[in-house]
Amino acid sequence: MKFGIILFPSKKLQDLVNSYRKRYDPHYALIAPHITLKTVFEATEDEVKEIAQDLRRIAKNAERIKISIQKFSSFSPVNNTIYLKVEPTDKLSELHAILHKGALESQPEFSFVPHITVGQKLSDDEHSDVLGSLKMLDTKHEETIDRFHLLYQLENGSWTVYETFLLEKESN
Amino acid sequence: MKFGIILFPSKKLQDLVNSYRKRYDPHYALIAPHITLKTVFEATEDEVKEIAQDLRRIAKNAERIKISIQKFSSFSPVNNTIYLKVEPTDKLSELHAILHKGALESQPEFSFVPHITVGQKLSDDEHSDVLGSLKMLDTKHEETIDRFHLLYQLENGSWTVYETFLLEKESN
Repeated sequence: MKFGIILFPSKKLQDLVNSYRKRYDPHYALIAPHITLKTVFEATEDEVKEIAQDLRRIAKNAERIKISIQKFSSFSPVNNTIYLKVEPTDKLSELHAILHKGALESQPEFSFVPHITVGQKLSDDEHSDVLGSLKMLDTKHEETIDRFHLLYQLENGSWTVYETFLLEKESN
Repeated sequence: MKFGIILFPSKKLQDLVNSYRKRYDPHYALIAPHITLKTVFEATEDEVKEIAQDLRRIAKNAERIKISIQKFSSFSPVNNTIYLKVEPTDKLSELHAILHKGALESQPEFSFVPHITVGQKLSDDEHSDVLGSLKMLDTKHEETIDRFHLLYQLENGSWTVYETFLLEKESN
C-alpha cells in the first residue's frame, strides 16, 4: 500500500485553497489541501502498524507548529506547480527530518519546501497568468497546527486517513 | 462546522465499493467508502475539542469490531440508495448508541442500519437494474475494524478527518 504523511491546515484555509484548486489542480477531488511532510512511500499492512507506533511516539514528543503564510509562489521552471508558501521554521524542519529517520528512513526527493499546492499541471501560459493574479492578493495568514495524519491511497488515486497523531509536547 | 463519525472499512473493501460508486454515487469524490456511526451534526471549533476528548474516552473503552457483509440491499421505497449491508452486531449497536448520548446526545434520524453506500440518487429504472446485477455477485466478506474517525465537512462538500480514535479495549 502507498502511504504519505501530511498536515491539514484549518478548515478556513482549506476552503480558501480549494476555491483555487477547483479550477487549477487536477488532484482537487483526491485529497484535501495539505502540507506534505513525507511523500508517498510503500508499506505493508503489518509494517504500517509499526510505523504508526513510531509516529505516536514522535507526536508525543513534538510541539504544536505555528505556520505563517506570506505569499503565493511556484516551482517553475522545475514544474508549473503554484502553491501557498509556508514559511520554514525549525519545528517544521525538525518534524520533517524525524519522519525520514529510523524505521521511516528515506531520502526526501527534494529539499523540504513546506507548501500548500494551489494549482499544478498548468500550461506555461496558464501558469504565468494564474500566478500573476494570485500574487496580487493579500495572503498573509497565521495559524497553529496540533496534529498530523498518516494517509493511504486507494486504487482510484484518492487518499484516506489511516491515523491522526496529536502533537502533545508542551511548548517551553 | 459540520461533523460526522464514521468507520472506514479496509482498503480492499473501499476499492471494491469505489468501483461501483464511481458510476452510481454522486458523493464518490467527496468521501471514501464508510459506515456512518453518527450523521452530520453541528459543533464549533471549541465544542469539537471537548467532543474529541469524549471520543478518546469512548474509544479506550470499546472493543474492536468484527464486521460481516453478506449482501447488497436498498433503502427503496424510502429512497433509491443501494448499499452493502453490514450485519448488525451488539458491538456496532453499542458504539452507535454511546455516540448519541451525553455530550453527543442527539436523536438518530433513522433506526441504525449499518451499511456502506454503493449508489444513490438513482432513477427508479437504474436502481432496479443496478440492484438486480449486484445481487447476483458473491459479496461475502468479513473483517475487523480497530478505529473510528471524526470528520468535518469543507465548503465544497468534501470531508476531511479531524481525528482518529483507536478501539483499545481488549476483548474478553
